[in-house]
Amino acid sequence: MKTPFALCLAAILAAAAPAAAPGRTIAEVVDAAPADAWVAFDQSDLVYLTLAGGGRVVIALAPGFAPAMVANIKRLVSAGWFDGLSVNRVQDNYVVQWGDASEAKPLPPGALAKLAPEWERSSKGLALTRVPGGDGYAPAHAYAGAAWPVALDPARGRAWLAHCYAMVGVGRGDAPDSGSGGELYAVIGATPRNLDRNVTLVGRVVDGIERLSALPRGTLALGFYATPGERVPIVSARLGTGLAPGERLALETLRAGTPSFAALVKARADRAESFFVTSPRHVDLCNVRVPVRPIAR
Amino acid sequence: MKTPFALCLAAILAAAAPAAAPGRTIAEVVDAAPADAWVAFDQSDLVYLTLAGGGRVVIALAPGFAPAMVANIKRLVSAGWFDGLSVNRVQDNYVVQWGDASEAKPLPPGALAKLAPEWERSSKGLALTRVPGGDGYAPAHAYAGAAWPVALDPARGRAWLAHCYAMVGVGRGDAPDSGSGGELYAVIGATPRNLDRNVTLVGRVVDGIERLSALPRGTLALGFYATPGERVPIVSARLGTGLAPGERLALETLRAGTPSFAALVKARADRAESFFVTSPRHVDLCNVRVPVRPIAR
Repeated sequence: MKTPFALCLAAILAAAAPAAAPGRTIAEVVDAAPADAWVAFDQSDLVYLTLAGGGRVVIALAPGFAPAMVANIKRLVSAGWFDGLSVNRVQDNYVVQWGDASEAKPLPPGALAKLAPEWERSSKGLALTRVPGGDGYAPAHAYAGAAWPVALDPARGRAWLAHCYAMVGVGRGDAPDSGSGGELYAVIGATPRNLDRNVTLVGRVVDGIERLSALPRGTLALGFYATPGERVPIVSARLGTGLAPGERLALETLRAGTPSFAALVKARADRAESFFVTSPRHVDLCNVRVPVRPIAR
Repeated sequence: MKTPFALCLAAILAAAAPAAAPGRTIAEVVDAAPADAWVAFDQSDLVYLTLAGGGRVVIALAPGFAPAMVANIKRLVSAGWFDGLSVNRVQDNYVVQWGDASEAKPLPPGALAKLAPEWERSSKGLALTRVPGGDGYAPAHAYAGAAWPVALDPARGRAWLAHCYAMVGVGRGDAPDSGSGGELYAVIGATPRNLDRNVTLVGRVVDGIERLSALPRGTLALGFYATPGERVPIVSARLGTGLAPGERLALETLRAGTPSFAALVKARADRAESFFVTSPRHVDLCNVRVPVRPIAR
C-alpha cells in the first residue's frame, strides 16, 4: 500500500520530472526509417495475378515458411496453369478464393496434387521483432524478415504464419494433405486466427488486395458464386521473373528485426496521433499493418 | 505442487473416465438453441439505409450503450436528414463512412451538433456471456444482451463496445465531442480495437454489410472518393417504425447470457468441425461471429 509519505514523494518527483517526451506517430516512424530498414521483395517470389478488367494483384510468396508448397505454386504459375481459371468464392468477412472451379484441370508435369502440411517451422534463424503480449491463440507473436506475421511457441522453438488480413493460404479438403496450391484464398475480414496451423499459408497480397476484397460476394454457402457467369476470370498469373522488367513492380517492406520495426510496433500501440484520446497501449499482431511501398528510383 | 500420489490418483481417474464426448459444432449449437435463446431487434432501434441501386443495409442501434447519440441519430433519421447524402469514404481493411460530405448541411430542429463522448458505461445490469481470455486491449471480454461485443474492466465495473467487424461508430474530428451522428462508419476489415474508447459506437450492421464492404475503395487519403461522382448516394434512411409493416425486416440474434450463447463461444473455440486438425482452443471476441437470422413466421 502507498503511504502518505510515498504519495508525497511521488508528487514531488512527478513535479520535478520533465514532461514525458511525446511518442512518435506512425508516419514519423515510417518517414524516419533508413534505407537498410527496408527489404525488397525478390521478383522470383512475386506472383502477378491479372483479373478480367485489368485489375492486378501482386502476391509475395513465403518460401521460408512453406518451401514445398511455394515451389509447387511456382510450377503451376510458370506453366500458365492459372490462366483462364477464376475467382470462385467471395465470402464476406472471411476469404476470397481462386483457382480451378472444376477441380478437374490436370496439373502440369512436375506439380504435385497433394503435399504434406507446412503449418509450422523452427523459429531458429528468423529475424524477429516481437509484438508484446500474447493472446489465447499463441504464447507469443512477432514479425519475421520481410514482415511476415508469426505466432511463436518459445517452449517448443516453433513459429507459424498467422491469418492476418491479406494473407494467402492453400485451400484443402478435410484431409490435411489435400491441397496442391491450385486453390488459393486471401483473408478479407476480421482475422480468422482459428485457421492457423490448419492450412498452409504461403504468402500475402502486397499490392491490390482491394481488387479482391471489393469483389461482389457470392450468394451460395461459403460465398461461392451461384453461376459460372459471376466468376471473375483470371487472365494470367506470372512470376515477376517471367515478366519483362518494365512490367514488374518493385516493392519493399519494412524489415523485421530492425529498430525502425520495433518503433513501428510501439507507435501502433501508443498512438501519438492527435485523434487518440485513449491510448490503446497495445497492438495485436494483425493490426501492426506494416507498410509496403514502391521502391524509389 | 503435485505429489507423486496426486499424479498417480490423477492417472487412475483419467483411465477410469469415459472418453470425452466430442464437442458440438457451431451449426449444431445454433440449430439446438431454443426460442428463448433468441432476441428480436426492436423496429424502433433499426435504421434501414437504402443505397442507390437498391441495396439495403440494416443497422441495429445500441441505446443501452450510447443513449444520447442514438437519440440524436434517430432525430436525424426521422427528419429524413440522411436522404440524398452519400457514402463518401471506403478505406480497405478499415471502414466505410457515410453522411454529409459537405459538412455544412443544417441539422434538423432538436438535433445536437456536438455530444459528449459515450465511450463506456457501467457493467451493471448487462446480461453477459464471457469470452474467456483477456488480451492487451482489455482485462476481459463478453457479449451483452442482443449480442453486443463488449470489453470489460471488472476492477472499475465498466464496459464498452468493441470495434468488431460491422460495428457502426460516429465520425468525429480531434475534439472528443465533435461528432453529431451525421457522419457514421462501419468496420470492414481486421478489427481496429485501437479505436475502442476513442469514438462513440452506436450499433452494428445486422443485414447487408456486404453492400458496404464490397463498394469500390476510394483513392484519396483515408479512402475518400476522389470525385463527387464516385460517391454512392443514400436514397433514404428510415427507422423500422417509420416503414410500412411489409417493408420491415424481422430479425433476431442469439441472446447473450443464455446457455446457448455460452455453447456458441465454446464451439467457436474448440472447433469440432471435421476440417479442423489443430483446435484453436481459443476465440477472440470479434471472431465469435454471432448469428442473426430472419424470424420464422
